[in-house]
Amino acid sequence: MDNTLNNVRQMAIVGTGLLGASVGLGLKAAGFTGRIIGLGRRIETVRQAADRGAVDEACEDFSVLRDCQLVLVAVPLGAFAGIFEKIAPHDHEALVITDVGSTKTQVVALAGQLLPHPARFVGSHPMAGSEQRGPEAAEAQLCRGKPCILTPQSDTDPAALRLVDALWRTLGMKMLSMSPQEHDRATAAVSHLPHAASVLLIHTAAKLGGFDVASTGFRDTTRLASSNPPMRADIMLTNRDCLLQALEAYENNIGELKHLLRAGDQEKLIAWLTEAQRVRDQWNQRRD
Amino acid sequence: MDNTLNNVRQMAIVGTGLLGASVGLGLKAAGFTGRIIGLGRRIETVRQAADRGAVDEACEDFSVLRDCQLVLVAVPLGAFAGIFEKIAPHDHEALVITDVGSTKTQVVALAGQLLPHPARFVGSHPMAGSEQRGPEAAEAQLCRGKPCILTPQSDTDPAALRLVDALWRTLGMKMLSMSPQEHDRATAAVSHLPHAASVLLIHTAAKLGGFDVASTGFRDTTRLASSNPPMRADIMLTNRDCLLQALEAYENNIGELKHLLRAGDQEKLIAWLTEAQRVRDQWNQRRD
Repeated sequence: MDNTLNNVRQMAIVGTGLLGASVGLGLKAAGFTGRIIGLGRRIETVRQAADRGAVDEACEDFSVLRDCQLVLVAVPLGAFAGIFEKIAPHDHEALVITDVGSTKTQVVALAGQLLPHPARFVGSHPMAGSEQRGPEAAEAQLCRGKPCILTPQSDTDPAALRLVDALWRTLGMKMLSMSPQEHDRATAAVSHLPHAASVLLIHTAAKLGGFDVASTGFRDTTRLASSNPPMRADIMLTNRDCLLQALEAYENNIGELKHLLRAGDQEKLIAWLTEAQRVRDQWNQRRD
Repeated sequence: MDNTLNNVRQMAIVGTGLLGASVGLGLKAAGFTGRIIGLGRRIETVRQAADRGAVDEACEDFSVLRDCQLVLVAVPLGAFAGIFEKIAPHDHEALVITDVGSTKTQVVALAGQLLPHPARFVGSHPMAGSEQRGPEAAEAQLCRGKPCILTPQSDTDPAALRLVDALWRTLGMKMLSMSPQEHDRATAAVSHLPHAASVLLIHTAAKLGGFDVASTGFRDTTRLASSNPPMRADIMLTNRDCLLQALEAYENNIGELKHLLRAGDQEKLIAWLTEAQRVRDQWNQRRD
């Protein structure tokens, strides 16, 4: 465990679904000895997390934050404004606030508007998840080995940044840092656009037919279309501008492919496919 | 083993790469006792298949077909015309010809033009493969449990159709039958378009950036971009019209998504995502 976390005697996790509860389990597995309070919109979910041992106590009253040094907001993106409003009256000089939101520009802006000490809010995006949901599916090792992006601002408190960095490192995450805008452009390209492409493939096949002859390639390219619709709609709408830009770049590439096909230029088509193969294989080898 | 195959005392596999050699190994594993002759454009590849025991003999002279009852053409799509021309002088009344081509309209048309007895040509598309290539990667069980599509014509000889059906059933494939045109429309929607979508995602990310934060969703949606470029270019060009139609349907769906995003209508967006999730999950459950 990162020593910086020793200063945290009590912390809160707001939202104890899959990710929030997995953070609680992961901290305990890593030897964190501070008390973990569970808070949330639905007390039953928080109680389930307590039953699993992911939090020490399920609580309904946000005033408990007065005795916390750290709070992790792990609710769906659409619920952030309401949660920040509940945190604000109990925010204090020694409280560091972070989150798990999959888009960052809007979350960081909301923190600036709604929290009394936005310099001690540090945006985080731990890129860990699963098709499953809820505290029952939580796992102590969910975050291990996965990337986590921090999005500090120029006025972010360095001590707050160190503490949030220590939180995710303790769970075994690979840390990256970028601006909220860079984060949202990058994830639009490699996460939100691929999700959209998956859903679009399903809608296209539903129109053209062919499910009887679909095999493993179709299974893999459309896996993301099975992910949680309200969560995905939240991501798409809170990152709308970047996703629209990515869709337009994608459409331009479709135009290029159509041109190659109509021209029937085998040599250029092979070159276009070979370049993609090279880029993809290089990235995939670097991951290992 | 299907009894119909007992009538085959000698057969030939033309092209002993991954799929051709896997068919040879699979037939022997299933108890086929006829002699299997390997033919091909590169005799070294055929000799490798013989060394692996996938064929009994590597041969350079197509006149050996005079003593065969069945020939499987397992070369890349671009090589079909040349192979049909080599088969034609040795074709005879008792020879059944089939293939493994991933697109069918053009292959069936070529058979009609170049073979003396096109009624005994039966188009096949065994949907089995791997990222690996060559006879070294061949496996006796490669085809087992996978779909295989036959594309008989109205004038196809029923005995030829039964024999080809028996060949693939012996390897454990799930048989489907449709016209070459239906086959090419269906595979454009669920195989060639998903491959194109994968390659397009890589080209888009190469332009917009974000590889550092790409994770398992990106890996799965782009897996097909790593597949063999010349083979893929062959498929794209021999099925060009159907692929262009599928790309246009896909573009229309992108237009619909952009409209939903610009309108910011969360409810309609969730409904659009939920419909795709339902269709995809239903298909995936039916597969098992």
